[in-house]
Amino acid sequence: MEKIRIGIFGGSGYGGSELLRILLAHPQAQVSLVTAHEHAGKAVGEVHRNLYGLTDLKFVSAPDELAASVEGFDCVFFALPHGQALELAPRLPANVKAVDLSGDFRLGDAQEFLQHYGREHTATELQREFVYGLTETNREAIRRARLVANPGCFATATLLGLAPLVAEGSLSGRVIVDAKTGSSGSGAKAAANTHHPQRSNSFYAYKPFTHQHVPEIEQELRRVGDWTSELVFMTHSLPVARGIFASIYAETKDEIAAERARELFAEFYRDSFFVRLVSGSPDINWVKTTNFCDIGFAARGRSLVVFSAIDNLVKGAAGQAVQNMNLMFGLEEKTGLLLSGTNP
Amino acid sequence: MEKIRIGIFGGSGYGGSELLRILLAHPQAQVSLVTAHEHAGKAVGEVHRNLYGLTDLKFVSAPDELAASVEGFDCVFFALPHGQALELAPRLPANVKAVDLSGDFRLGDAQEFLQHYGREHTATELQREFVYGLTETNREAIRRARLVANPGCFATATLLGLAPLVAEGSLSGRVIVDAKTGSSGSGAKAAANTHHPQRSNSFYAYKPFTHQHVPEIEQELRRVGDWTSELVFMTHSLPVARGIFASIYAETKDEIAAERARELFAEFYRDSFFVRLVSGSPDINWVKTTNFCDIGFAARGRSLVVFSAIDNLVKGAAGQAVQNMNLMFGLEEKTGLLLSGTNP
Amino acid sequence: MEKIRIGIFGGSGYGGSELLRILLAHPQAQVSLVTAHEHAGKAVGEVHRNLYGLTDLKFVSAPDELAASVEGFDCVFFALPHGQALELAPRLPANVKAVDLSGDFRLGDAQEFLQHYGREHTATELQREFVYGLTETNREAIRRARLVANPGCFATATLLGLAPLVAEGSLSGRVIVDAKTGSSGSGAKAAANTHHPQRSNSFYAYKPFTHQHVPEIEQELRRVGDWTSELVFMTHSLPVARGIFASIYAETKDEIAAERARELFAEFYRDSFFVRLVSGSPDINWVKTTNFCDIGFAARGRSLVVFSAIDNLVKGAAGQAVQNMNLMFGLEEKTGLLLSGTNP
Amino acid sequence: MEKIRIGIFGGSGYGGSELLRILLAHPQAQVSLVTAHEHAGKAVGEVHRNLYGLTDLKFVSAPDELAASVEGFDCVFFALPHGQALELAPRLPANVKAVDLSGDFRLGDAQEFLQHYGREHTATELQREFVYGLTETNREAIRRARLVANPGCFATATLLGLAPLVAEGSLSGRVIVDAKTGSSGSGAKAAANTHHPQRSNSFYAYKPFTHQHVPEIEQELRRVGDWTSELVFMTHSLPVARGIFASIYAETKDEIAAERARELFAEFYRDSFFVRLVSGSPDINWVKTTNFCDIGFAARGRSLVVFSAIDNLVKGAAGQAVQNMNLMFGLEEKTGLLLSGTNP
Repeated sequence: MEKIRIGIFGGSGYGGSELLRILLAHPQAQVSLVTAHEHAGKAVGEVHRNLYGLTDLKFVSAPDELAASVEGFDCVFFALPHGQALELAPRLPANVKAVDLSGDFRLGDAQEFLQHYGREHTATELQREFVYGLTETNREAIRRARLVANPGCFATATLLGLAPLVAEGSLSGRVIVDAKTGSSGSGAKAAANTHHPQRSNSFYAYKPFTHQHVPEIEQELRRVGDWTSELVFMTHSLPVARGIFASIYAETKDEIAAERARELFAEFYRDSFFVRLVSGSPDINWVKTTNFCDIGFAARGRSLVVFSAIDNLVKGAAGQAVQNMNLMFGLEEKTGLLLSGTNP
Repeated sequence: MEKIRIGIFGGSGYGGSELLRILLAHPQAQVSLVTAHEHAGKAVGEVHRNLYGLTDLKFVSAPDELAASVEGFDCVFFALPHGQALELAPRLPANVKAVDLSGDFRLGDAQEFLQHYGREHTATELQREFVYGLTETNREAIRRARLVANPGCFATATLLGLAPLVAEGSLSGRVIVDAKTGSSGSGAKAAANTHHPQRSNSFYAYKPFTHQHVPEIEQELRRVGDWTSELVFMTHSLPVARGIFASIYAETKDEIAAERARELFAEFYRDSFFVRLVSGSPDINWVKTTNFCDIGFAARGRSLVVFSAIDNLVKGAAGQAVQNMNLMFGLEEKTGLLLSGTNP
Repeated sequence: MEKIRIGIFGGSGYGGSELLRILLAHPQAQVSLVTAHEHAGKAVGEVHRNLYGLTDLKFVSAPDELAASVEGFDCVFFALPHGQALELAPRLPANVKAVDLSGDFRLGDAQEFLQHYGREHTATELQREFVYGLTETNREAIRRARLVANPGCFATATLLGLAPLVAEGSLSGRVIVDAKTGSSGSGAKAAANTHHPQRSNSFYAYKPFTHQHVPEIEQELRRVGDWTSELVFMTHSLPVARGIFASIYAETKDEIAAERARELFAEFYRDSFFVRLVSGSPDINWVKTTNFCDIGFAARGRSLVVFSAIDNLVKGAAGQAVQNMNLMFGLEEKTGLLLSGTNP
Repeated sequence: MEKIRIGIFGGSGYGGSELLRILLAHPQAQVSLVTAHEHAGKAVGEVHRNLYGLTDLKFVSAPDELAASVEGFDCVFFALPHGQALELAPRLPANVKAVDLSGDFRLGDAQEFLQHYGREHTATELQREFVYGLTETNREAIRRARLVANPGCFATATLLGLAPLVAEGSLSGRVIVDAKTGSSGSGAKAAANTHHPQRSNSFYAYKPFTHQHVPEIEQELRRVGDWTSELVFMTHSLPVARGIFASIYAETKDEIAAERARELFAEFYRDSFFVRLVSGSPDINWVKTTNFCDIGFAARGRSLVVFSAIDNLVKGAAGQAVQNMNLMFGLEEKTGLLLSGTNP
């Protein structure tokens, strides 16, 4: 089989950096183009110094003529700030597949998009063609998709912890998600909330109730099952570089013991290599740098707590994007994704 | 006024270490005795090297004759592993006051004690004399108390975030407390869960539903108001040395805006110097090494979220113990406790 | 005695923040003015949230008329970026004392200043009046000074570890200083080198040979003794918020055992409360948030290694500035500076 | 080609854990046995939870009959505490190759071994057969070796930074190595020096002059060139999980500019994929989890400073062990070792 010829738009951020790490070692991928406005002309390994010695690729500026620049390509990834894929995707040739890591095409409702992203959706036609890329709940549609909207990192951790329960119709009452993220979730640009002297001994909540991942979570839960619960979603900042941990507090219609919950999840995820059901609590330490989502359970009466841990940049971004690409090109889902974490 | 003559039983752990830091600088305190079995004979500043140069005190072994060892003393602190104050408190002379930092005398119900601490309560008579030492909810009783059971760290953060709502009778439905603690909460002895290579990049849940601070929280909430809600209490481990952050998810009978919640708390804590109501979220970074509890709010409809942040070793242990001692000896509550935190 | 009336110019950075922490609790100090351009009008406790509840001070803009703004003041601190005290100091009334925390007045040689700070020295007249404020080597001159140039953080750690050896004339051959600093040394503004995702797992060298603290170190060593050695000075970045650790590799003319070095230092620092000689290695953990400099030794043959640890923002900046102020106003040197560190 | 059949003795520590991570993904390796006394019977993925889902291997007890247990094996790794390979290696069948990650067979001199490891060398005969496994300086001997003594982590970082200079005969005067290590260097067992509350804000020196890696460094430098300098070797503890950074202060006979040093190293390491020469300083952040050694330079006059950064568990242990295995079995050196690090 010929390699998939790939362009990455937005290679300087953490999403782009992790895409490069994964795709450069992917046996079926060939990265032919990677853009980065501010680093144009520089070697990839000079910017992402983890990749020094592993590639001769150089960053280029964003091309004026998108279509021409991707001629002969099979797949592009958009790893750009919100709002840019909105401009680029409509200009893609019809024979080029795409995975967008931003929030531009996740929401089907233009009004919701406006509300959460603060801009008009200017490509609502195309929006219909985009498939929501949570691999584990949407595998078949992704296989057939030309365009995939890769889920947000918080949405991934939350949805993987809730989908089996919603699909089964097990829930009643409101669901509370207490989610925590590492600092790389804020991106590669220095900012006050990631200033090391402050962040390294801190823990705090932010964006209460209003995180932009909420609508995509609810949209996907409605697709997966009969979601009518209230979602209380709270994001917090952790003093680590990588990782998301979601503590999901559900009320179930009937008592569900932890062991039974585990069986239910095992059944739902029986074909999902990257979901690992653990005993006790997962730990972000064990999923860091990997594409795994580790899930654990605790239960008492009708209170069921699901714990979900991912690496925000891998299963929460670049890893899942490649997982989706694999499906879109008929490859085995885990090709190039057996990134084992480390101990410690 | 003469200084309060003080003995500290258990000076080698973090509770004892912080008691020493605070009491050595307290204008009305004179530490005359500090025990530490394994460090007997060593200078305090040799073990707690932060105190090197600040005191000539030496550790002594636990005395055989407790009563004799504290003759002439005004106050003792027990900063010992669970189960030891149980043995010592009954042997204290009647004219010596005491603050116990362990869980030995927090619970009024012997059965609950057995269940959560795994041992018989052998001093149930004395138990009745102990006053629960959450200063802000129990100030008057503490002023009159000879014996005070200092609250647990998680209990302190949680109770300060819930007490005003329970006192006001504002709650309906279950309350979820997602609590996170720094590694010093595990004590000064090295253990697998505080092994630096693991802990420094980790976040995980532990003791689901069963943390031993749950019964003291519910006991105090019943005293403060009409507590009948279900409490879902979940503890997690943070990769920082100090700090507790509790995200408290309440359902209120009527809609309560964040601003209104703030007013209600401001009224409840109007005489409580150490509770600071902040705008937005508190951050453990701002309370570390201090006796403050910072509290913030978020609300939507009948969902009210209270965020509560303390230093687990100060307001959650040694600081509150001294705050209680101040009251027990007629001093101003904040004497010796104006420990300002640092930025960063 | 009346309190010292104080103005702080530059209260928003970490130097200013720590000056506020210390001076607000100082028994003889009264902070009457604190400037911060970008925070003018805001409460100090809103910006430095560690101080929330501890002061009603508000930030003001830098005054147009410096002299008028400090009328009636006894002392001002400049905690401003390099180059600003240069403009302000000449405009101070003659009866107002000043401590400058920047590098503007540390170097006696205008040429060296130009070389290391990249600007002309525009106040060379005034420069002669400034006394170098390393308290332990320059105590008597500081007592009599109206103007003090507070040493750099690296310079403080290094000089305290070298001065006794230079004073004694013990050295031969070159001296190598391998110095490491926490991230707060880069200031309170977010920047690439303090971006938490990068910094939290990093260690690297920077500014090899050329750090701007080198000339003040050599200048002071020449004053203290007969310094003719070559100084190899290398700065590194540590992934902690606070602390400087200097490993100083000296060659001595004769063999000096560690114990003998300790005696020599003990004699040199016999009146210096804030220098603590430790057995084994010091640790930044034990000096953090304090004004102590902990010093330890290792020796083999004519190789003597001195380890020196300080908190870069306290003994390396604000704490030493207050220590100097105490001397300048006839107070005991440690007034307001018994900031005990914490364990952990 | 058939896969190399492998046994790992000591699979529970960090060395063993990283061997498993690497070898389980190595295209030519088949791990058939892994011992761990305390975890016998447990799944590997239950202990090293990063590997959960990636292998069905189970730990077994150390076999009574070593020879029988490795029948049909091609290679064993000893990842055991010092002193155990000493017992096991003599009992290996002659057709089984071995790499020992401990210090048991690194030193040719039994007297030095006794001095630094505190025990008699009981296999001095076999010692002669062991080849010192610093791949980059000893490649040809390793290719022909049956038994390889894998270098210590500090020794690896130091030797790679010094070998080209010693080979070239460029040095005069003493050499100072200021080395810093992450906490995983202390192993997988919890201990006071790796207790998270202490370690996370600490930096200190330890084992001054006496680290057990010193003799293997000097032994190898004597083999590589004409090493007669004095070595001052100082180890320090960093508050990160992984990484070693060595700042090597050399005096050169003639002035060597940084650029010239770089050329000299480039020539020396022209066939060494895993040595990367960087501009400016290396950073442990860029080598973590990889087999790379990043080296940078700074120079002034005859002072040349070499900075060397590795991951202590990979290039400093398991990675280099596999690199050596590759050579011993005629494979390309980097087979299975293209572990790219991550950003961040």
